[in-house]
Amino acid sequence: MIPGEVRALIDGVRDGSVAPQDAEARLVAALRAQPFEDLGFARVDHHRAVRQGFPEVVLGLGKTPAQIAEIAARIAARGAPLLVTRAGIDAFEAVRARVAGVAYHELARAITLPRDTPRGTRVIAIVSAGTSDLPVAEEAAVTAEVMGNDIARIYDVGVAGIHRVLAERARLESARVIVVVAGMEGALPSVVAGMVDVPVIAVPTSIGYGASFGGIAALLGMLNSCANGVAVVNIDNGFGAACMASLINHSG
Amino acid sequence: MIPGEVRALIDGVRDGSVAPQDAEARLVAALRAQPFEDLGFARVDHHRAVRQGFPEVVLGLGKTPAQIAEIAARIAARGAPLLVTRAGIDAFEAVRARVAGVAYHELARAITLPRDTPRGTRVIAIVSAGTSDLPVAEEAAVTAEVMGNDIARIYDVGVAGIHRVLAERARLESARVIVVVAGMEGALPSVVAGMVDVPVIAVPTSIGYGASFGGIAALLGMLNSCANGVAVVNIDNGFGAACMASLINHSG
Amino acid sequence: MIPGEVRALIDGVRDGSVAPQDAEARLVAALRAQPFEDLGFARVDHHRAVRQGFPEVVLGLGKTPAQIAEIAARIAARGAPLLVTRAGIDAFEAVRARVAGVAYHELARAITLPRDTPRGTRVIAIVSAGTSDLPVAEEAAVTAEVMGNDIARIYDVGVAGIHRVLAERARLESARVIVVVAGMEGALPSVVAGMVDVPVIAVPTSIGYGASFGGIAALLGMLNSCANGVAVVNIDNGFGAACMASLINHSG
Amino acid sequence: MIPGEVRALIDGVRDGSVAPQDAEARLVAALRAQPFEDLGFARVDHHRAVRQGFPEVVLGLGKTPAQIAEIAARIAARGAPLLVTRAGIDAFEAVRARVAGVAYHELARAITLPRDTPRGTRVIAIVSAGTSDLPVAEEAAVTAEVMGNDIARIYDVGVAGIHRVLAERARLESARVIVVVAGMEGALPSVVAGMVDVPVIAVPTSIGYGASFGGIAALLGMLNSCANGVAVVNIDNGFGAACMASLINHSG
Amino acid sequence: MIPGEVRALIDGVRDGSVAPQDAEARLVAALRAQPFEDLGFARVDHHRAVRQGFPEVVLGLGKTPAQIAEIAARIAARGAPLLVTRAGIDAFEAVRARVAGVAYHELARAITLPRDTPRGTRVIAIVSAGTSDLPVAEEAAVTAEVMGNDIARIYDVGVAGIHRVLAERARLESARVIVVVAGMEGALPSVVAGMVDVPVIAVPTSIGYGASFGGIAALLGMLNSCANGVAVVNIDNGFGAACMASLINHSG
Amino acid sequence: MIPGEVRALIDGVRDGSVAPQDAEARLVAALRAQPFEDLGFARVDHHRAVRQGFPEVVLGLGKTPAQIAEIAARIAARGAPLLVTRAGIDAFEAVRARVAGVAYHELARAITLPRDTPRGTRVIAIVSAGTSDLPVAEEAAVTAEVMGNDIARIYDVGVAGIHRVLAERARLESARVIVVVAGMEGALPSVVAGMVDVPVIAVPTSIGYGASFGGIAALLGMLNSCANGVAVVNIDNGFGAACMASLINHSG
Amino acid sequence: MIPGEVRALIDGVRDGSVAPQDAEARLVAALRAQPFEDLGFARVDHHRAVRQGFPEVVLGLGKTPAQIAEIAARIAARGAPLLVTRAGIDAFEAVRARVAGVAYHELARAITLPRDTPRGTRVIAIVSAGTSDLPVAEEAAVTAEVMGNDIARIYDVGVAGIHRVLAERARLESARVIVVVAGMEGALPSVVAGMVDVPVIAVPTSIGYGASFGGIAALLGMLNSCANGVAVVNIDNGFGAACMASLINHSG
Amino acid sequence: MIPGEVRALIDGVRDGSVAPQDAEARLVAALRAQPFEDLGFARVDHHRAVRQGFPEVVLGLGKTPAQIAEIAARIAARGAPLLVTRAGIDAFEAVRARVAGVAYHELARAITLPRDTPRGTRVIAIVSAGTSDLPVAEEAAVTAEVMGNDIARIYDVGVAGIHRVLAERARLESARVIVVVAGMEGALPSVVAGMVDVPVIAVPTSIGYGASFGGIAALLGMLNSCANGVAVVNIDNGFGAACMASLINHSG
Repeated sequence: MIPGEVRALIDGVRDGSVAPQDAEARLVAALRAQPFEDLGFARVDHHRAVRQGFPEVVLGLGKTPAQIAEIAARIAARGAPLLVTRAGIDAFEAVRARVAGVAYHELARAITLPRDTPRGTRVIAIVSAGTSDLPVAEEAAVTAEVMGNDIARIYDVGVAGIHRVLAERARLESARVIVVVAGMEGALPSVVAGMVDVPVIAVPTSIGYGASFGGIAALLGMLNSCANGVAVVNIDNGFGAACMASLINHSG
Repeated sequence: MIPGEVRALIDGVRDGSVAPQDAEARLVAALRAQPFEDLGFARVDHHRAVRQGFPEVVLGLGKTPAQIAEIAARIAARGAPLLVTRAGIDAFEAVRARVAGVAYHELARAITLPRDTPRGTRVIAIVSAGTSDLPVAEEAAVTAEVMGNDIARIYDVGVAGIHRVLAERARLESARVIVVVAGMEGALPSVVAGMVDVPVIAVPTSIGYGASFGGIAALLGMLNSCANGVAVVNIDNGFGAACMASLINHSG
Repeated sequence: MIPGEVRALIDGVRDGSVAPQDAEARLVAALRAQPFEDLGFARVDHHRAVRQGFPEVVLGLGKTPAQIAEIAARIAARGAPLLVTRAGIDAFEAVRARVAGVAYHELARAITLPRDTPRGTRVIAIVSAGTSDLPVAEEAAVTAEVMGNDIARIYDVGVAGIHRVLAERARLESARVIVVVAGMEGALPSVVAGMVDVPVIAVPTSIGYGASFGGIAALLGMLNSCANGVAVVNIDNGFGAACMASLINHSG
Repeated sequence: MIPGEVRALIDGVRDGSVAPQDAEARLVAALRAQPFEDLGFARVDHHRAVRQGFPEVVLGLGKTPAQIAEIAARIAARGAPLLVTRAGIDAFEAVRARVAGVAYHELARAITLPRDTPRGTRVIAIVSAGTSDLPVAEEAAVTAEVMGNDIARIYDVGVAGIHRVLAERARLESARVIVVVAGMEGALPSVVAGMVDVPVIAVPTSIGYGASFGGIAALLGMLNSCANGVAVVNIDNGFGAACMASLINHSG
Repeated sequence: MIPGEVRALIDGVRDGSVAPQDAEARLVAALRAQPFEDLGFARVDHHRAVRQGFPEVVLGLGKTPAQIAEIAARIAARGAPLLVTRAGIDAFEAVRARVAGVAYHELARAITLPRDTPRGTRVIAIVSAGTSDLPVAEEAAVTAEVMGNDIARIYDVGVAGIHRVLAERARLESARVIVVVAGMEGALPSVVAGMVDVPVIAVPTSIGYGASFGGIAALLGMLNSCANGVAVVNIDNGFGAACMASLINHSG
Repeated sequence: MIPGEVRALIDGVRDGSVAPQDAEARLVAALRAQPFEDLGFARVDHHRAVRQGFPEVVLGLGKTPAQIAEIAARIAARGAPLLVTRAGIDAFEAVRARVAGVAYHELARAITLPRDTPRGTRVIAIVSAGTSDLPVAEEAAVTAEVMGNDIARIYDVGVAGIHRVLAERARLESARVIVVVAGMEGALPSVVAGMVDVPVIAVPTSIGYGASFGGIAALLGMLNSCANGVAVVNIDNGFGAACMASLINHSG
Repeated sequence: MIPGEVRALIDGVRDGSVAPQDAEARLVAALRAQPFEDLGFARVDHHRAVRQGFPEVVLGLGKTPAQIAEIAARIAARGAPLLVTRAGIDAFEAVRARVAGVAYHELARAITLPRDTPRGTRVIAIVSAGTSDLPVAEEAAVTAEVMGNDIARIYDVGVAGIHRVLAERARLESARVIVVVAGMEGALPSVVAGMVDVPVIAVPTSIGYGASFGGIAALLGMLNSCANGVAVVNIDNGFGAACMASLINHSG
Repeated sequence: MIPGEVRALIDGVRDGSVAPQDAEARLVAALRAQPFEDLGFARVDHHRAVRQGFPEVVLGLGKTPAQIAEIAARIAARGAPLLVTRAGIDAFEAVRARVAGVAYHELARAITLPRDTPRGTRVIAIVSAGTSDLPVAEEAAVTAEVMGNDIARIYDVGVAGIHRVLAERARLESARVIVVVAGMEGALPSVVAGMVDVPVIAVPTSIGYGASFGGIAALLGMLNSCANGVAVVNIDNGFGAACMASLINHSG
């Protein structure tokens, strides 16, 4: 409720066109609005599309298939696009029984039901260092696509063979934002960010062993990047990187 | 040297308009170009503005005032805008002796010499949780300004008094990108990102004591943000956040 | 044995109503009292209800079903209320074979046998940030209930949609003590504690991935809370939070 | 503005006793209220006493003496009690020049200006393990006193001489809540909590060397306490423990 | 080869009673002695009993049952007592097929074949904090027994019920050395060491959850013990504690 | 393309022996050369042998058997020697179906197909501290052999029986480079490096328990070696140590 | 008060030789004895010599010179030997003004006033790896001497020159217990413990840089020792190692 | 004493050319040789040149100027080359007073006195990422020079401007071994190792801030390098890297 609406309501009370109890109800409601649906175990946030440009996304991690399906059904019932991340095949089966038309992306471990969504202005490049980083890169790609973006996939261009990424300069420069996915020492975002004037979102992965500590080495490498224009998301968080990239690609 | 230039050069050799030794020189140069200036202790990267939209920035940390002044003089001599971060007053004195017109920003610990720079399209909001976070917030603000952006400062709106940040919703929504600076538990970026559909760059600060571990608590909080559209830079890295924000604000 | 009893015993010896060897025996016993029952692998602490207001609770973690059942039988035989935490269904089966009337709480992984217990004075609110935090929140709820407290469950009100928790201000203010359960960045206790003048007990959960480090991120966030009136328990320790809350709710 | 006030305002508009523009102004203000005072570098939260039972406390850490004095002056000007923690003698001098009647507590490093405050119902016991823990224990004591509580100081009763704390059982049992301050292995809260049925707030201190890691050992020990009824605050956070204890001691 | 033997050899060469080539062989051998048996994958150290008072003990962790059985057979063939730690039932089966008379200790996960061994002078007390610590305590007990020591088991006397350990003062004082096994906060060694004038060897266990970090909390607690006369071994290293205790109990 | 070739091409264009379009094609190719084969999920780096003396090695970790087999087939098709590390038996079966003549090394978990390769000049000694370290030592040995080196295996010579390694001084001194593999406290590289004037490459292993933290203890021990001539690779990285050793053994 | 005394008291009451009120007083006192002296900031534990064989030792760390002097004066007044560790020269001056005859050990940073003390049975060897470890080794030596032990100092015998420690085998074997002090990789205790059958107490020091992490590398190395008969104390805790060694050297 | 010498001695005794007591003395000495000089606080290891190709180097860290000077004097008195690392100007003054001809390298913080030393076969390239890494790079350079190597310095070629290091390919390829010094994310060694077939020794530096954690980020990045032929030394350990490089450059 914005100030102009408040005045209109006041005037309506004064001239009799609005009943006092109606005015009271609307104003109290404005002070106490609960723009969500309470399922007991979850409060589905239907206002999120208004506030954030895309409906609530379901993080499958730690939820049962039944919980995921119930939340997905509520979102789909509103006609909103659906995205469930970190979802196993059993969660997909449970959702498919409730929501028609959903697709499962095995590598990305994501469930989607695309709807018409505003398109981003340019391309999001998604770059990965190694073959083992593909699941995270694909989570980013699936997320960005369902959010209305075109994607350029540039995979397996890690720094141990620097010519591979140098050969992709043109495609990197033409992107509006670049997501770089890398495990082990996580050096690729620094190299990419040094080559172009495009914002780079770095995603460390848990790929590695020993002193990679489940992605900590890559995470620290990216946080300490000596290149400008790099920001970092959580380890293996392809989804979060794609959200950030999509917001940038939709802004103007 | 792009492929079209190569063909033109070849044709010139063939028709005699280009001397063979000139063609050789230009092609060899293209294969071996060193677009930097070697000072012995530093290689000033004059190509960076071409590649990245802003000239090389000098990180003062770990450099002597004399080294800083020497590098700054080379950058200024090219007519490029100058920015030195993490610079003490002694570094500023050394630079001022070599470069006319520089300014020192005490709170931000930065030296600047602004030049004409392309303007960003909208406003960058810089938000801080507490008074103690101001040096980092100001480093971000000074950096963003010298890179050609308009800034909205929204300071001391930490989550312990949630009404303070809720009261700033309008200014937050009107920004193109938001930099959120917070120490201690680092919760503010999550709250801000949940309120608006604007990309949020989170900067953890080393403010706190005990189990804040010099900013680790805030860093981990931000990396694990349950809100969408958040990416993170290094602890106390106001400069890096502003670089990222400026790239976003200049893209279109 | 309190000083008054000592004097009575002395007087009894003097006037002949107490035999010297009896007095000796009772005094030596008082110096050496072992108010527990030794099962070889465990010493059941039957004095705990006297010292701490509730009998010994059995932590199932690391104990075999047979050990759990044996300890539970001893506690129940005294007529005391029974609570076993971190108990699987196999432990429940073993206990049920020894103790009649026990119930199993699957989400909370707890076994209970309530008895008449002094009631707490007001309500304990149990708040959770996300659906995945429910097992820990329910461990807290089941514990608090068996200890004689009324509970208000307020679930899935994490800070990414701040309006959800703001909408629950009234219920939060009416509680005597609030338990806030959150994983990932663990920011919810700070927000809740900033809204009300009620003690907040924060419970970090191991929910998250990557840099959540099994709950460390949430734990550090809560320890560094910028709000006043927050104290923290171990990761996933819903039981411990409920104990603390129950002590507060029973004090006067 | 509570719902009842809304209705009264509506009725006033209807019967003409309230001018429409006045009603509009008050309602818009209620939607936009900023219950704080903006000093540029800080927003003094004057509503906090209403929300939390005690006015905003100033954390001196990371603020300049001038900033501290300015904030202190605003708080004192409202007639509220003043507490500044982590304040050096220079901060005290700056405050004293602006606010009459303030006192400095050297060991606790705190500045206070007590005012009439509601009294807590019983005694808060503050227990310390060693002589080196006194600064933290005294920060807790000074905080609790300015918040209207009676204090029982029980110092230097660490577990290496267990008879020392056993000898204080009576004073511990008569407290409504106990703050236990300990460094090194941090074992004292477990022992105290096992002796009594009173809530225990554990404060790890940074006292120790080597593998105490600045208080991490004590912090972990307290988080893993095998006793019930223990919650923990940040390392060296005597202030936070006292806030929690005062809330408990004032509740009924 | 000691100096006296060298002189005898020299004299033998001179007077002809020792052939020069024999003297050479023995001296070269003394310089190159290899007092071990090489199995390719292992070098069984048969000299260890001479150097260290007990033959080589086999750490089962990371070895195959076949490797364990082969090493065990070589040790047993020399008539030495056998101890294999961290051994599963499959390793036991493999050893039993090669060595007659071995016993398996399920709780301790150890294989033993006792032989006549010098007896320690007094009793080793083995104290555990909780029931879940028993496997580690039993590894210590089995190890100490096979090394020729009498054991006093004092189990489940953790600090949350401090009267339980106080009741055992007499047995603790009569031991020559005490092994204290505890997980969670690891406070028990401090309390025990404060009660008696006997060396205490502290064994942290991995029992706990959340911020116990697999025994780190207990380890740090023990390393930072404020009591005198405490030394610490690795997490879950009941074997190592018993070795140390046995050396002490055998010294005179 | 080296500068001399550029001149020859120019001259050829000028004198007509080279067609302009051919010259253009070759020069553009030189600027844009992609010396790798793109499989979509992987870019096989066929230039690596030219740059690094050995073809690309396949790290099996995180790749599916099908991906491994596809990459292996491309490498073998070029006639290059093949090495796959961290490969299970299922990966071996998949490779064997595509590439004839491959061998599987079970302990080392490696797949090899040796080809003629330049021989190293001397012997690489591979030393291990314990039997449990053998898988890592064997990964090093298999790698070094396929790269054309002679190996001396010196196993189970840990520092607890220092005479075992002292007895091997001659073989250690005759090596050109020594790889030392050790878990637990990782002390063996320091002792070996102190005995000889040969470069030592230290490989920490994840063997151990408790405070070995999966190899961190050994890694830190090796990084802090007080002996000269020690460099370290990642935990369990027998492959990396062998690469480094082979480069040294081939240099002259 | 032991059981025999209780009986004597009872008999005395019965036969009239003890007045009832005297018996009451003595028995109540026995139940409530406080064998310490309360200075307000410290409780001097005069019973410690009875319980632990040596009076309370003053840890200077974190105490003011005035506090140290006050505690020292109380201990000396009882005729007990005095030891203050971690004491600067200013603390020494303060103590000397109160207690005659005290000595200051600059390298060890300790204050002592020896008295007649029972002698240990044999020699304690104190071994250090490097010259930089001497302050910790000397703290151990001074402590052990004031507690009545003979010392053998064996310094600068680190493992990088293994022949230096091998040359000291005889002195090591003749000790009853060995304290080994080492920083950096902390490998010396493993080597020493492998050479002899004497209990080894390992003291990690904070000597080192980079990945020594203030002694963590050495601490972890010692905790993971592959040799038997090693137990560890806190980083730089020469005092604690000497306490443990002295208890062992006095036992029989 | 080698076996051949033993035989010669035996033969000498037999034929009378060697007196028996002389033979005894020499053989006993060989068994007990102490090839070091004991200064009380240090044992100068004069055998090291024999064993390791270069005399003992003095690590200045943690030693007093007087201790350093004393050790340096003993080394110089033998005619050996002298190198002291981590030495301040005060240590240099102390050494200069005892040893003529020494030089001080301020940036490297090293003291040297070169002597004739065998020359390495080729060049050692020393590469640094940034200007702030120069002190560590210079420690490596000074060390390598005093050990008889030619150096190529390639400074300030970090990955954020990848063309700078690509431009140095020729000099990198002509080195026999490359030392790469980098702080922050530590990515440079991976890029360099991927360009050439030369062994790379990576040196992480403590340059950086926030999540660089004093060099941990760079260290982990280097340990997890995806390039082959990289081994790592301790943070800031330029000396250690040069030792390793010199051993390689001298081997053949």
